Amino acid sequence: MVLYVIGLGLGDEKDITVRGLELVKSCEYVFLEHYTSILGGVSKEKLEDFYGKSVIVADRGLVENDAEELIIEPAKEKKVAFLVVGDPVCATTHTDLVIRAREVGVEVEIVHNASIMGAAGACGLQLYNYGQVVSIPYFDDKWRPTSFYPKIKYNREGGMHTLCLLDIKVKEPDFVAMAKGRTEFLPPRYMSVNVAAEQLLEAEEKIGEGAYDSKKTLCVGLARMGQPTQQIVAGTLEELIHADLGGPLHSFIICGELHDLELEVVKEFLIEGSTFERDNSKSDDK
Amino acid sequence: MVLYVIGLGLGDEKDITVRGLELVKSCEYVFLEHYTSILGGVSKEKLEDFYGKSVIVADRGLVENDAEELIIEPAKEKKVAFLVVGDPVCATTHTDLVIRAREVGVEVEIVHNASIMGAAGACGLQLYNYGQVVSIPYFDDKWRPTSFYPKIKYNREGGMHTLCLLDIKVKEPDFVAMAKGRTEFLPPRYMSVNVAAEQLLEAEEKIGEGAYDSKKTLCVGLARMGQPTQQIVAGTLEELIHADLGGPLHSFIICGELHDLELEVVKEFLIEGSTFERDNSKSDDK
Repeated sequence: MVLYVIGLGLGDEKDITVRGLELVKSCEYVFLEHYTSILGGVSKEKLEDFYGKSVIVADRGLVENDAEELIIEPAKEKKVAFLVVGDPVCATTHTDLVIRAREVGVEVEIVHNASIMGAAGACGLQLYNYGQVVSIPYFDDKWRPTSFYPKIKYNREGGMHTLCLLDIKVKEPDFVAMAKGRTEFLPPRYMSVNVAAEQLLEAEEKIGEGAYDSKKTLCVGLARMGQPTQQIVAGTLEELIHADLGGPLHSFIICGELHDLELEVVKEFLIEGSTFERDNSKSDDK
Repeated sequence: MVLYVIGLGLGDEKDITVRGLELVKSCEYVFLEHYTSILGGVSKEKLEDFYGKSVIVADRGLVENDAEELIIEPAKEKKVAFLVVGDPVCATTHTDLVIRAREVGVEVEIVHNASIMGAAGACGLQLYNYGQVVSIPYFDDKWRPTSFYPKIKYNREGGMHTLCLLDIKVKEPDFVAMAKGRTEFLPPRYMSVNVAAEQLLEAEEKIGEGAYDSKKTLCVGLARMGQPTQQIVAGTLEELIHADLGGPLHSFIICGELHDLELEVVKEFLIEGSTFERDNSKSDDK
């Protein structure tokens, strides 16, 4: 039969498309991907009520180790839905699932929806002016990777904005408990705009190639985009370290060159007394 | 009251979200934006049946000249829906409408949906690896602008893919008829992958800075993304000049560096006997 990979959009249960909802209702098994993103404030139970179906939460282990048996094998005979927050083609994980399903002859149909990449236009920065998207992983004691830094630098030198996707840690093993012989997981963590700003500041201080200026470059913090409690705050990197944007998910934008129309919208979100200075000079002329 | 700016997604009437549909049904007036994109194969009448509402088609003239009177003024007292193909925040036009409405105290609510920018991930190229989006306008006898060229070059030098949005000409005045005193419009035109490939080739021949190679660089033609008749064809620029992708809308991608997983998916769409050669060397190291 068919594996339907269906985007849920960004907000709550009603952000699924009419087509997507009809397909979910027609499926035998419904999986909800639950480790690259979260659907803000909607429980599995609420989704089940809305669909009139049981929903199986698929964590990373299930998708990476058991997808063959639990998702792809049943999809040979029946209709199976794999629900993904945002748009299904945004994360590599789902590409992999699609490839594996098609390899064994399962038909795969994608139902698109809004993603954070599209919704990032809501702060007034034109989607045309974004460069490469980067991911910012949680720094820990030993691992403080700054591979996002040269990408942001390259985008900024070309006048482009950079959307930064912030790390999510769901169902991470608790090694302290495991050492004591118990299988336990740490509580989920979602990187805030504040932590992202701190880490970006650290990267600039460490590398020092002037990819961005912590006191001048305009940055935008996004929280719960597409949800009723959506919040957008603009300011410098230093200012965003202390901005309170409430609960997850957060994303972060480092602006490049600002066009007049962009500035007109984004300045509505500026922190009071911000030291941001408009600076449209490119570092070189490429 | 409220101006709801609602994305319709890419395919047909059922690609609206459940939330979007509920809002449309609750509105007094429903406008359909009809000049930056088209909803594939769905007539105004079909939308009206589906919504149980009259739909007013809004062309460029209406939105740019009469939005104040026809859309914003009524939205002060009543609920008004402004429907947009794709996601509402993708085009500057709608930003302008939103700003003008808010300026006079009208509450504006955006309902996101899938856009071509998200759906472009369906060909296997990771959305993370795209640089700045460019627009390719129709060349005519006098006006053959190549402002897209340096942007593609910059993206490619940074290893990034470039999504090219192709020109749409809807309700263009017919100057020949107008000279005879008649107000007439030319038939709508939607740029095909073939014309885009030709114009890109001309730009490279004229400017000659090697932004891309017409015989080697992988390009991808996209047609009717998110619709049942969706078509994806990959090949070199020269090969795509002759590929038949059927009716509109088309989009075009010029690949940058290809990762293994990307190549695995995109090669499924390769034209038979393509001369494309994988070349992951960047032009410089920044």
